[in-house]
Amino acid sequence: MNVDGQHYRTLWVAADGWTVEVIDQTGLPHELAVIRLTTVEQAASAIRHMVVRGAPLIGVTAAYGLALATRVDPSDAALRRAAQLLSATRPTAVNLRAAVEMMSERLFRLPIDERARAAYDHAARIAEEDVAVNRALGEHGLPLVRRLRAGSGPVNVLTHCNAGWLATIDRGTALSPVYRACETGVAVHVWVDETRPRNQGASLTAWELGKAGVPHTVIVDNAGGHLMQRGLVDVCLVGTDRTTASGDVTNKIGTYLKALAARDNDVPFYVAVPSSSIDWELEDGGSVPIEERDGQEVSHVIGRTEDGRPARVRVTPAGSAVRNYGFDVTPARLVTALITERGVCAASREGLSSLFPERLRGEAS
Amino acid sequence: MNVDGQHYRTLWVAADGWTVEVIDQTGLPHELAVIRLTTVEQAASAIRHMVVRGAPLIGVTAAYGLALATRVDPSDAALRRAAQLLSATRPTAVNLRAAVEMMSERLFRLPIDERARAAYDHAARIAEEDVAVNRALGEHGLPLVRRLRAGSGPVNVLTHCNAGWLATIDRGTALSPVYRACETGVAVHVWVDETRPRNQGASLTAWELGKAGVPHTVIVDNAGGHLMQRGLVDVCLVGTDRTTASGDVTNKIGTYLKALAARDNDVPFYVAVPSSSIDWELEDGGSVPIEERDGQEVSHVIGRTEDGRPARVRVTPAGSAVRNYGFDVTPARLVTALITERGVCAASREGLSSLFPERLRGEAS
Repeated sequence: MNVDGQHYRTLWVAADGWTVEVIDQTGLPHELAVIRLTTVEQAASAIRHMVVRGAPLIGVTAAYGLALATRVDPSDAALRRAAQLLSATRPTAVNLRAAVEMMSERLFRLPIDERARAAYDHAARIAEEDVAVNRALGEHGLPLVRRLRAGSGPVNVLTHCNAGWLATIDRGTALSPVYRACETGVAVHVWVDETRPRNQGASLTAWELGKAGVPHTVIVDNAGGHLMQRGLVDVCLVGTDRTTASGDVTNKIGTYLKALAARDNDVPFYVAVPSSSIDWELEDGGSVPIEERDGQEVSHVIGRTEDGRPARVRVTPAGSAVRNYGFDVTPARLVTALITERGVCAASREGLSSLFPERLRGEAS
Repeated sequence: MNVDGQHYRTLWVAADGWTVEVIDQTGLPHELAVIRLTTVEQAASAIRHMVVRGAPLIGVTAAYGLALATRVDPSDAALRRAAQLLSATRPTAVNLRAAVEMMSERLFRLPIDERARAAYDHAARIAEEDVAVNRALGEHGLPLVRRLRAGSGPVNVLTHCNAGWLATIDRGTALSPVYRACETGVAVHVWVDETRPRNQGASLTAWELGKAGVPHTVIVDNAGGHLMQRGLVDVCLVGTDRTTASGDVTNKIGTYLKALAARDNDVPFYVAVPSSSIDWELEDGGSVPIEERDGQEVSHVIGRTEDGRPARVRVTPAGSAVRNYGFDVTPARLVTALITERGVCAASREGLSSLFPERLRGEAS
């Protein structure tokens, strides 16, 4: 997407042909900085510390992490170590492990001296596929947004966390239909949940919508239900870190609460699901491992002071315990439909098997 | 309640017999400071800027604000001005206007030279009544908490915002049964919603529970649904700023989302309602005026730096719009029961009229 007239992706290979460069998302919305990754350790650290985040993007970053590893040492042992290191960074998103496993398998089959080149080629293919998939999500999601137009006002979309281009290589998942709507002249306004504790809505979604010129309003996570009660939301659009074969949607903590409010107020609730985010092995969302992160993300808030300096402030008493769950599971029954790169389907085994028969042969769930 | 061995209320009359002193709640949890109010303008400002907050406490503060006004000028005109000033501070809580109207009416009937003394006496009576009512809420709520004991673990309570003693003169509303449970040997653990945008949970509820030695854990507002899905919440207990005659509950923004999650997971959802918070004139919660506050409460977060200095950090991009709705309405159908000073009843006109027949004569709703 364009940022102040320059096209950006979230990750690219530098002119030297091997260094990986990424936008440092921990600096946004205040500063657009680029970080260079030259080792697999740096790639793993970037994922763990959320320099890069978003299920699709961490999948691609992990793929390039393997490429960086094979460049230094393409042996089986080194590849195995790199795969383990990357897989252990974040437990919930399925893309990451899928990308690492698929690439490892392929690389193991190759002669040692062909691995590094093949690893870069394969990582590049995963990145390009991400962009193509996200474009398809936009095309399939567009009619769902467009048909909600009524009168002269914009279609009011509510989104949670960041499932925009910053969560992917480009275009985004849940925001891809929003960008398509804007490109095709459908007026849209986005309610942006700030998404505590890490404020990906306030810091990333608001920033990228602003840069793209999409009208939007940041609200606290508590406000969405009230907005839906007052008829101020036409549709909810969110992404996913892992959707099960039966359509249960794991996404950023708090998504489930918005899905409940959507159902209670007859607001359609759509999830943009690149098939790389589907865990075909798992039926029940209750079995998805839910990442718990450092409690300081809850007890403290990071931002900028009035004079622009980065600062971290404590909001809880020093003696109070905190817990920091990263994700929750929205049961399929609350999801109006899934938007995939092959089209829109019901959030169910039947729905998914109608679009991905090669993955799900329609067995009873 | 006790704070480090010393008994505190949130508001009291100083030794001079007329200055009103209040705990400055904007300094908590980092600093316990006391502010002196000597004019009605200062009382109104304390309410508006949330030096004092919580429906019961702002009602009492407004009553003392009228007393401060009459001390300077007990004329009808001055009383009328003071009442207007105080009523305009915050629109949603019903206690404030009720206290101001009741006191004004009484004072108008008195000779000018008796008004100041009567105003102080009457404000003191409202304050004492608040404490007595809150004690009764604790007694009536205690069995609802106690019966949820299972095995050796504590009863897990989830609360939103601050409905503890800091929201009242003493004891609290929703937290009164929690304090009673602790006093009677029933083990309790409280999940504390941080309650953005002003973080009354993280700053006030966590602080007062900590000072009272009640085990508690601060979570982001997004987390409560996940906790309920995982069986980690036995009961929700919240307060209210205005409950209608039909049992619709206006409370801090985000309460409705927790009520939806409670229903979806069969978790009882109780509201502690001193009858001073009931709007007997209003049926439909949708008609309650919802306060909109300064957007900077959303775009910025207030806390303390590591070296203890107060600081305010921006979390949104400078160009992004924000909206800041203070309250939402939880429909009566989502409320398991109301806890009042006269007992527990259904959240309905019938339920309320069974306990308050003099206010609601059982007319069809």
